[in-house]
Amino acid sequence: MLSRDSPDIEDLLSLNPRVKTQCTVVPTKQTKENKKHWKRNNDHTAPPCTTLSNNFEDIKHTTLSERAALEEAARCLKCADAPCQKSCPTQLDIKSFITSIANKNYYGAAKAIFSDNPLGLTCGMVCPTSDLCVGGCNLQASEAGPINIGGLQQFATEMFKRMGIRQRLPPQTKPLGKKIALLGGGPASLSCATFLARLGYEDIKIYERRSYLGGLSAAEIPQYRLPIDVVNFEIQLVQDLGVCIETNRSLSTKDLTVQGLLDSGLDALFVGIGLPEPKLNPIFKGLDVEAGFYTSKNFLPLVSDGSKPGLCACKAAQSLPKLHGNVIVLGAGDTAFDCATSALRCGARRVFVVFRKGSSGIRAVPEEVELAREERCEMLPYLSPRKVCLRDGLITGMEFCRTEQNEQDEWVEDEDQTVRLKANFVISAFGSGLQDPDVRDALAPLQFRGELPVVDRTTMQSSLPQVFIGGDLAGVANTTVESVNDGKVAAWGIHCQLQGLPLDTPAALPLFYTDIDSVDISVEMCGLKFENPFGLASAPPTTSAAMIRRAFEQGWGFVVTKTFGLDKDLVTNVSPRIVRGTTSGYKYGPQQGCFLNIELISEKRAEYWLRSIAELKRDFPEKIVIASIMCSYNEPDWTELSIKAEAAGADALELNLSCPHGMGERGMGLACGQIPDMVEQISRWVRHAVKLPFFIKLTPNITDITAIAMAAKLGGADGCSAINTVQGLMSLKADATAWPSVGKEKRTTYGGVSGNATRPMALRAISEIANKVPDFPILGIGGIDSGEVALQFLHAGASVLQICSSVQNQDFTLIDDYCTGLRALLYLRANPPPENGAFWDGQSPPTPVHQKGKPVLRLTGEGNSTLGFFGPYQRERDIAMAELRSKKGALWDAQQGAVAICPSNGGPNEAPKVADIIGAALPRIGTYNQLDNKQQKVALINDDMCINCGKCYMTCADSGYQAIEFDKDTHLPSVNDDCTGCTLCVSVCPIIDCITMEPKKIPHVIKRGTEEKTVYTHALSQCQ
Amino acid sequence: MLSRDSPDIEDLLSLNPRVKTQCTVVPTKQTKENKKHWKRNNDHTAPPCTTLSNNFEDIKHTTLSERAALEEAARCLKCADAPCQKSCPTQLDIKSFITSIANKNYYGAAKAIFSDNPLGLTCGMVCPTSDLCVGGCNLQASEAGPINIGGLQQFATEMFKRMGIRQRLPPQTKPLGKKIALLGGGPASLSCATFLARLGYEDIKIYERRSYLGGLSAAEIPQYRLPIDVVNFEIQLVQDLGVCIETNRSLSTKDLTVQGLLDSGLDALFVGIGLPEPKLNPIFKGLDVEAGFYTSKNFLPLVSDGSKPGLCACKAAQSLPKLHGNVIVLGAGDTAFDCATSALRCGARRVFVVFRKGSSGIRAVPEEVELAREERCEMLPYLSPRKVCLRDGLITGMEFCRTEQNEQDEWVEDEDQTVRLKANFVISAFGSGLQDPDVRDALAPLQFRGELPVVDRTTMQSSLPQVFIGGDLAGVANTTVESVNDGKVAAWGIHCQLQGLPLDTPAALPLFYTDIDSVDISVEMCGLKFENPFGLASAPPTTSAAMIRRAFEQGWGFVVTKTFGLDKDLVTNVSPRIVRGTTSGYKYGPQQGCFLNIELISEKRAEYWLRSIAELKRDFPEKIVIASIMCSYNEPDWTELSIKAEAAGADALELNLSCPHGMGERGMGLACGQIPDMVEQISRWVRHAVKLPFFIKLTPNITDITAIAMAAKLGGADGCSAINTVQGLMSLKADATAWPSVGKEKRTTYGGVSGNATRPMALRAISEIANKVPDFPILGIGGIDSGEVALQFLHAGASVLQICSSVQNQDFTLIDDYCTGLRALLYLRANPPPENGAFWDGQSPPTPVHQKGKPVLRLTGEGNSTLGFFGPYQRERDIAMAELRSKKGALWDAQQGAVAICPSNGGPNEAPKVADIIGAALPRIGTYNQLDNKQQKVALINDDMCINCGKCYMTCADSGYQAIEFDKDTHLPSVNDDCTGCTLCVSVCPIIDCITMEPKKIPHVIKRGTEEKTVYTHALSQCQ
Repeated sequence: MLSRDSPDIEDLLSLNPRVKTQCTVVPTKQTKENKKHWKRNNDHTAPPCTTLSNNFEDIKHTTLSERAALEEAARCLKCADAPCQKSCPTQLDIKSFITSIANKNYYGAAKAIFSDNPLGLTCGMVCPTSDLCVGGCNLQASEAGPINIGGLQQFATEMFKRMGIRQRLPPQTKPLGKKIALLGGGPASLSCATFLARLGYEDIKIYERRSYLGGLSAAEIPQYRLPIDVVNFEIQLVQDLGVCIETNRSLSTKDLTVQGLLDSGLDALFVGIGLPEPKLNPIFKGLDVEAGFYTSKNFLPLVSDGSKPGLCACKAAQSLPKLHGNVIVLGAGDTAFDCATSALRCGARRVFVVFRKGSSGIRAVPEEVELAREERCEMLPYLSPRKVCLRDGLITGMEFCRTEQNEQDEWVEDEDQTVRLKANFVISAFGSGLQDPDVRDALAPLQFRGELPVVDRTTMQSSLPQVFIGGDLAGVANTTVESVNDGKVAAWGIHCQLQGLPLDTPAALPLFYTDIDSVDISVEMCGLKFENPFGLASAPPTTSAAMIRRAFEQGWGFVVTKTFGLDKDLVTNVSPRIVRGTTSGYKYGPQQGCFLNIELISEKRAEYWLRSIAELKRDFPEKIVIASIMCSYNEPDWTELSIKAEAAGADALELNLSCPHGMGERGMGLACGQIPDMVEQISRWVRHAVKLPFFIKLTPNITDITAIAMAAKLGGADGCSAINTVQGLMSLKADATAWPSVGKEKRTTYGGVSGNATRPMALRAISEIANKVPDFPILGIGGIDSGEVALQFLHAGASVLQICSSVQNQDFTLIDDYCTGLRALLYLRANPPPENGAFWDGQSPPTPVHQKGKPVLRLTGEGNSTLGFFGPYQRERDIAMAELRSKKGALWDAQQGAVAICPSNGGPNEAPKVADIIGAALPRIGTYNQLDNKQQKVALINDDMCINCGKCYMTCADSGYQAIEFDKDTHLPSVNDDCTGCTLCVSVCPIIDCITMEPKKIPHVIKRGTEEKTVYTHALSQCQ
Repeated sequence: MLSRDSPDIEDLLSLNPRVKTQCTVVPTKQTKENKKHWKRNNDHTAPPCTTLSNNFEDIKHTTLSERAALEEAARCLKCADAPCQKSCPTQLDIKSFITSIANKNYYGAAKAIFSDNPLGLTCGMVCPTSDLCVGGCNLQASEAGPINIGGLQQFATEMFKRMGIRQRLPPQTKPLGKKIALLGGGPASLSCATFLARLGYEDIKIYERRSYLGGLSAAEIPQYRLPIDVVNFEIQLVQDLGVCIETNRSLSTKDLTVQGLLDSGLDALFVGIGLPEPKLNPIFKGLDVEAGFYTSKNFLPLVSDGSKPGLCACKAAQSLPKLHGNVIVLGAGDTAFDCATSALRCGARRVFVVFRKGSSGIRAVPEEVELAREERCEMLPYLSPRKVCLRDGLITGMEFCRTEQNEQDEWVEDEDQTVRLKANFVISAFGSGLQDPDVRDALAPLQFRGELPVVDRTTMQSSLPQVFIGGDLAGVANTTVESVNDGKVAAWGIHCQLQGLPLDTPAALPLFYTDIDSVDISVEMCGLKFENPFGLASAPPTTSAAMIRRAFEQGWGFVVTKTFGLDKDLVTNVSPRIVRGTTSGYKYGPQQGCFLNIELISEKRAEYWLRSIAELKRDFPEKIVIASIMCSYNEPDWTELSIKAEAAGADALELNLSCPHGMGERGMGLACGQIPDMVEQISRWVRHAVKLPFFIKLTPNITDITAIAMAAKLGGADGCSAINTVQGLMSLKADATAWPSVGKEKRTTYGGVSGNATRPMALRAISEIANKVPDFPILGIGGIDSGEVALQFLHAGASVLQICSSVQNQDFTLIDDYCTGLRALLYLRANPPPENGAFWDGQSPPTPVHQKGKPVLRLTGEGNSTLGFFGPYQRERDIAMAELRSKKGALWDAQQGAVAICPSNGGPNEAPKVADIIGAALPRIGTYNQLDNKQQKVALINDDMCINCGKCYMTCADSGYQAIEFDKDTHLPSVNDDCTGCTLCVSVCPIIDCITMEPKKIPHVIKRGTEEKTVYTHALSQCQ
């Protein structure tokens, strides 16, 4: 039988879904066993089965792969007056950087981040976001929960790091004299130095007591939360601006003192030395590392030395502190939890985190505590340390007394109740302070209040006007990001002080800048100079001239006014009239894949628009204003209106011959635009009436759009705008009424679909016109919503670009993202990233082999089969990884070292101009017959990226060629020789680059169904 | 100036985003204050500021609003051989029910759930999913994390509950005699009784010792996790099948005994009485409630009595146990945590959950523990109870000794270390058992092993062949869902036992069934009877005849074969050729909004298809097979091929005159289909050659599709298929090459776009043809991906429906969802849900006023302003709610009682036939001029649903009319009189029904920009 699967295919299909016709019955006992095989999360009752020794791999739940970052960024609402930004100490424009990520403009995102926070990558990794930005996220009010802001920040800045681009000063920076020093090389100083350098100060030096910069980020925060190459990368960004660094220089009466520095001719000094000494409970007096006693201030730096490649000055790998048995960590701040999880990596068998109060006394943020809990650190509340137990000079345990809250909620300690914990090591993490009299002396003549120097918390100025303080030493910041902000605030204060401005002068600190920002994206078309190719289409965003003014102020290069006619043709809209799309599923909220509208042309009079055009051109002479006009099919009207528009000062005209609803019934819009002769005639009338360039706006609701373009050209038009909206009916409710429907009668009419859903039609129309109607510039329209898509339209043949739907989805500020996005793409074309540059697709690097965005090693089990990431395979994998680590130490060091980017020191190559790339795709777009069916491809699946969903298997089974097998135990798919290269598996696979299309190496055998098969041997010979 | 916003608009726009040109600088100290205003999550260091007394509102994080459910369901990958299903004790077809939710087919989802789990709603609420389905979710391997399966299950079954539909037996059920009793009215018995009734058993009775059914679900699981109306609803579903219930009947020598029941003529008995008595530590001997001592077995039922409306037999509200001060809960299972969180609601000030081992000894699932942690219950590990402290007969505290693991990991208790905790109450939650000798006697002659009766864990059969056991008593199940499964397994065992079948006979338990499943969705067109209107389009899912066979087996009503031609026209494909869409953003994975393909017609010979059609019609005579054929423009070819197809037995032909790529270059496909004369001529040739019905497949790439339809009709075609794919270019990479691109040359050609992105064009084309070319049936195509969308196409004028892209996204089993979905829509049209039936849109109820899917009360603060849901407003709200509860008790009782649905007892109204609704939308679709611009609408925002994102404000500012104000403190938007009803705010609002369009009640003033304004007073007079 031809119509029945062969037995081998039936076998291959055994796991393909079937409609259920009866219930499935499996005894409870059996499922209890079965589920273990499929389990992907931890068994919460099992003790950890593997050791964490030497495991310094990323443990952040926030780390994101590109797919996850795009998904998460698309989820963000991009709120007005966004609470995330208001809750960020550095006031990061989070909404903007997430917008850029969502638009695949990773440079734009990184620019926004580094602008306000020079340590943006560090902060993306270590910020306690639930207490900051994420705490205010409006999506907390939705079930899907808040945005992973830290993860997105990390993602964007890491992408930038991979691009290998240096920070620099904008060309217009005015150099400023003055000599400035910063004491301490931690986040506060790095931030302060950055902003001072951006302001133009040229003589800036950071002094650091250690042999390396970075402060706590380098010395204390563990490698698995913040890798050292990240710290070094951000130090490099500071150095890019010419900031000098001197290490092994201490604030001390024996080395540098405040007074000494000031006496040496320094104009300003920033002190950001942190709090160098641990706070210590007297019971630990005399105990040292030999006895098994650490403080966080000596334990964590030792861990860093042993786990961070290249940190130590000698550059030789130090060994980790060697722990074993039980470890007690005292304290409940973030540092305590860092000590606890580090202890496990140094060999501890059990870790107890002991603190005086109840769980609301845990100062560490929940996400940090959660990580420790997952690793089975035990939290023991209500215990106050009393005594260390020693035997032979070694710690054997500790004694605590119980604490309790009495009925007045006061804390009381019950000395009668003693709790003993056996332990081999104790790590005290009770915070740090400034006790060393030598340091205090070196700070003289600064005034002190208690332990810390006096500081104005609004300006960060100390008691000496030219000395500013930030970070832990200032007593306000509790986190890295707050220290960074202290440095930023102080930078502005120092600038005011040095320039003789009042300290409350509104701040004007320059943004982050690189060579990408210098890329010229201006373009000339029909003698008009566009400062950038992005303009607003004739649509709701140009409803009024005041809106156009605001759009210009935000940076839009040009506008096309909302279409206006003569007053005799004045219109009145119906409501409702602009509705959400349904082409991207049941999607509510912004980033609609399309809109449908039945809005007419402008309700405003011609006079309003003519006067407005004059005003706009007067105030924005360098911007392009295109007047969109519409008349019925008669010469006097077109002549009158086009002459008036020219007289008003419009740079060009767009003739709207394509509005798909309403106007056609009056003999306008679409009614003219579908008939070549009418288009040609109207073009002639207008050409005859005016000198300025004019364009025909083309409808896509037509058999051959190139015929209309040709007619317009024949008639004398200078170019065309393509495409107008696509005529459609968006959706019907279950009662058979449409949305939108008008009035009690609930009537509707066909409207115009705009936005991404129309993009494939737009790209086709534009490229076809560009190929067939040469020298006829195109203003591209149709789902342009990013710099990346803009480049596609330029490549397809458009010269400038018109935008509506994406502004409806968001706001005018999108222009900034589009411009940086396009600049970055042009820059990267001339300057490929140092790592795998040839394989990047625009701002997207090739996907590394990963799970959840973290690199994975290829491990195989029995019979050389891939070891997967669930149930028994994950267990085997954990054991194998632990063994590898016990042999080789931390596994990712070498690799991470290799990733460190050294951008070339020569200047960058010049980026192409917009004009150079217009139409670049055209030569490769042609007829089907020009495609070579001898060069066949087949699918190749990467087992180590697979998440075992079987989407490839199912689509191949029910929509393809039954060429993918699916293992019933491992759930790993594999492509067999029947693959015809249809590519559906790639199209539905959720993991980017998990399946790729590779040249076919076996003969291409076509199943013709009956008789002999056709074999294309060319495929074989060509691909070997 | 016309082109500048007036000062009041400038003021209104002050919070509208602006592009940043310099950094923002705010001192750290100030942001620390500011962020509190915006904070939406809890301050993890703050003690709870409000009391939980009397708060029995839903605390589940899993509860979902409709928007969230749709979003979450769309995220599910619908995996092959899905691990979630394999990890569910009842083997729920989770992938299928989530598919149905994603397709807005809530009935279909509920049917899938209740089929395998009669307590599907209860389990959706209380299942420890992280240990079951969710534990195996493949999305655990992605950063967004696993699907909220419990929440989706709850959502779908609650939607069904609101529909007010009864369970019934399918008409074909064969009644079976036999008398069966079930002891105990908990989940195991309810499940067992359901499956026995579905098998046809008619004499089934459940005996329950309490005055109410439900077992632990009613008596112990707290109202805030499982409301009592849910329990009652599922009991009603069991009763719907005719199962009898007798309450206040105990298993006891004084009442019912196993032997007695068997002697009374019973054929089979199921025992599911649970474990009725608490396990008790001897130190509590003699302590009672008066002293402050509870066990979970008496505490939780008292809490239920006091918090579950109508639970107690007397129907009067009982009062809650009154607690105060400190409460110690002993144990670490789910029950312990229920006791802990209940204690807070009964007045406890502090709750300590005390257990013997470390955190890996916590048996409760993490999600349950997390809830208790959020409410500040303190976990105290390593404590073993030793003594209760009493004063004046009242508990004052407890003493524990410390436990520890020694170096061999053995647990040791250190009697020397005593820890005392002050407490006013102790609740022991150490599990339950079966000790009562009377119950054991009543179970005679069942054999025991230890405390529990002997049971075969594969069949649930006891030592007596006719007695089966399930639930806690059987000793396997630890959860409700496992008890339900015990009942299910036992039901099959009982059936085998009663029917004399071996107990290992493969199970065949019938699915859930209601009147919806009886709705007839067959339809006749051109004399052909389609059992349902869903067929596979001529496309990749019909690549081979074996695939068509499999599709028929899954339930598809018809197919159109992949297009074939004469052998002289044989084609060979290129690869790659089918790529993902880009119209829904950067979306990777299934549910692509569209695909683009450059695949040609079938590579197989005509003979293959002709023989296959014959085979398929022989084996599936009731299914419709349409042969899709294509020839070049000449009569002999069309004649030959159509005659052959007719001879092969095809029911009809589809002439492919619209393939947009490749074939046109051979003078086939699109090349013919865009020219009316050629279409008419081909139709004549085919009409002349054959008698069977034939349809023309129409291209949308044309100015006037109705002209082609008309030509086809003139030529004698019987109808048309609309629409074929839309010609497009999907996307270009940054190097200006397309995807797909072929060979080293990376050439491409325009392909065909299919799927949702084309739907608005399809709906337009179909409705236009239906309106303009009467009596010309349409086979609808273009983004049909659910029963709901199918109804839209039928309403627009299609008679049957062809599907491709959604199968590519998933698999053939979709047909089941489409059929139940369409049935449900037709049924609900005739039988609106009892609650607000008129306002449902298909299967979607009107959105209740909610936050995160949970009802909220309207509360106002100062100046009658709405109290929001963040920062200071949330605090005020918490206090106000606590006050209300202290006055009124639990707040949602009355409301929840009111929601309980009583479906009418009369039979349902007959659902319309498919034929009745075809074209129902057509009379309301017309020209723009028929729309009434006097009936204006304006936007209205519901403050209590608002999540303060300001999307409405921004779109109105930059793409509209500046008619929405946005409060700088409350972030509440409000619509002012300038609203013109454009509806963009509704279109971008993320919350369903938060903004609605309401009739305008003030005069409609149009801003013409200059001179006088136009006022439409009609609007005013009409709408008042």
